[in-house]
Amino acid sequence: MKRNLSFSLHHILLAVACVVSSAAVLAQVDPLPSWNDGAAKKAIVEFVRATTSQGSPNFVPQSERIATFDQDGTLWVEHPMYSQVMYCLERVPALAKAKPELANVEPFKTVMSGNREAMAKLSEGDHIKILAATLTGMSTDEFQAEVKKWLAEARDPRWKKPYTELTYLPMQEVLKFLRASGYKTYIVTGGGQDFVRVYAEATYGIPPEQVVGSAGGTKYGYGKDGKPFLTKEPKLLLNDDKAGKPEGMHLMIGRRPVAAFGNSDGDRQMLEYATAGAGTRLAMLVMHDDAVREYAYGPAKGLRATKVGAFTQALYDQAARKGWTVISMKDDWKRIFAFE
Amino acid sequence: MKRNLSFSLHHILLAVACVVSSAAVLAQVDPLPSWNDGAAKKAIVEFVRATTSQGSPNFVPQSERIATFDQDGTLWVEHPMYSQVMYCLERVPALAKAKPELANVEPFKTVMSGNREAMAKLSEGDHIKILAATLTGMSTDEFQAEVKKWLAEARDPRWKKPYTELTYLPMQEVLKFLRASGYKTYIVTGGGQDFVRVYAEATYGIPPEQVVGSAGGTKYGYGKDGKPFLTKEPKLLLNDDKAGKPEGMHLMIGRRPVAAFGNSDGDRQMLEYATAGAGTRLAMLVMHDDAVREYAYGPAKGLRATKVGAFTQALYDQAARKGWTVISMKDDWKRIFAFE
Repeated sequence: MKRNLSFSLHHILLAVACVVSSAAVLAQVDPLPSWNDGAAKKAIVEFVRATTSQGSPNFVPQSERIATFDQDGTLWVEHPMYSQVMYCLERVPALAKAKPELANVEPFKTVMSGNREAMAKLSEGDHIKILAATLTGMSTDEFQAEVKKWLAEARDPRWKKPYTELTYLPMQEVLKFLRASGYKTYIVTGGGQDFVRVYAEATYGIPPEQVVGSAGGTKYGYGKDGKPFLTKEPKLLLNDDKAGKPEGMHLMIGRRPVAAFGNSDGDRQMLEYATAGAGTRLAMLVMHDDAVREYAYGPAKGLRATKVGAFTQALYDQAARKGWTVISMKDDWKRIFAFE
Repeated sequence: MKRNLSFSLHHILLAVACVVSSAAVLAQVDPLPSWNDGAAKKAIVEFVRATTSQGSPNFVPQSERIATFDQDGTLWVEHPMYSQVMYCLERVPALAKAKPELANVEPFKTVMSGNREAMAKLSEGDHIKILAATLTGMSTDEFQAEVKKWLAEARDPRWKKPYTELTYLPMQEVLKFLRASGYKTYIVTGGGQDFVRVYAEATYGIPPEQVVGSAGGTKYGYGKDGKPFLTKEPKLLLNDDKAGKPEGMHLMIGRRPVAAFGNSDGDRQMLEYATAGAGTRLAMLVMHDDAVREYAYGPAKGLRATKVGAFTQALYDQAARKGWTVISMKDDWKRIFAFE
């Protein structure tokens, strides 16, 4: 009897602690401490209030609370080059070790040379050969193990840190704030779905089933031991960029998001699609305008033009017309990285 | 102060009530009341205990608790014909009204005739034409509205009830029991993903994002009002049957399920894939052997052969070899439908 009683008391205390702490969090703690006060922070807080307060005219039932985030340039650093492209390039020597004939064949020969000028001149056809060789032909389990190993060892050239540490702290706060408010958070990326799924849960708290990305087909088969496995095929099922983002969201989620976050022209259609639904909607674009703490590129507002995550003036103007919020990394973010 | 105090007391009482009621549910109430005591029921209960009890050697963390269910013949009636095929056939007159030229063109002419003998002779090419005409070419919103309307009006020929009432009560109990035990439940169906997503949440408590099915491509575009929408294209992305089931699960979930439920040869690879993972796994096959309360077909164990949901002797033998549990509708289920 005594055991039972103390068991119950323990549970009651725990339950009370939970109630008190949730109430306190909601009432007092700033959910976005790395954000400066301003229009961007206000837009997020007011969106959450409007869609989650019981009795609000724009209340959204919890099952429909879907928020989608582009990854490269929105949740983590994408310059000087997308991390997955670095992975593919850095995999080439290991590939050539396994298949020595590759070392004398273009474009692998150029990649092996390490000559950055020559590498910059590789054609789109060359890139497709490199992607096909490094992202397909192995089992899904082998691929996952290779990516995991690379992520543990690879370092970003500027900060000399693992790529998974180069996530934006203010965006991590948005992810957590939305989840604490009953939102399911999704990554919707032009990057490879299988690649991002390897680290999304540990890095962002986003499980594999909530990562939508460019995806290839797989082929079911059996190993010598009779065990089934899936082989990654060089067959593109979903190019999850631009118009492919709403198409991919329909395929993988089947609901229209209520909030969407991006940073480049590749995210335009995702934001259009999210904001075309009824009620309060949130659409935000991260603008890289902080050359000191991160990078500055656009070419919106006269920033340096780039092919990696281009945010054009046309997108900037569309955002202004549509009431989408542009986040200035320079002005809106107190801190950019957790390690600062 | 008094207000605050009563507020807190109210919360404490609520919290205590929750703790007490969950404990009671776990300890006393049979989670599977429509199941007879036997090997099948025992397999489910022991699987849940083994994978969710803290300290169990086969404990599965909550994030990895994925259970997948075939739909037709596993969660609801599939005879005499899959509901979605009925939808496609019954849509033809409405199509012909909108496009009168169709009424004189095969295979639509035969479908319009209502001649069941002639319809049974339609070729696979004819079927593809009917599917393409009734499942593609409209916006995703229009399709959803059409399916919703049909589901409200259509009646199964035997029970004269909406198809959504012909779900198996014992399987509904399994879905709820697994969810109450921290499992995410998925439908993995050869049927159309967009079709099943229309009713899966109301019918099974399974949200659209947890429905994996055969899926076609969509195309992003803009209406006259400038609003974006998606058009369903006659382009198959995923044939979610047989080997397509593990391929579809990898694409849409990105995790291997711990438990999988099916009823036909189309589910073999899903069960193989689920059980190839480490630790305790659950694989179950519903066998339709109750001609009185539902249908009896196989041809496993000498039951009547069928092309709709065939459960062959080879699959039955594989189940025995692999330790997969075959559920006898006749012997294992006390009740089949909630309306009984």
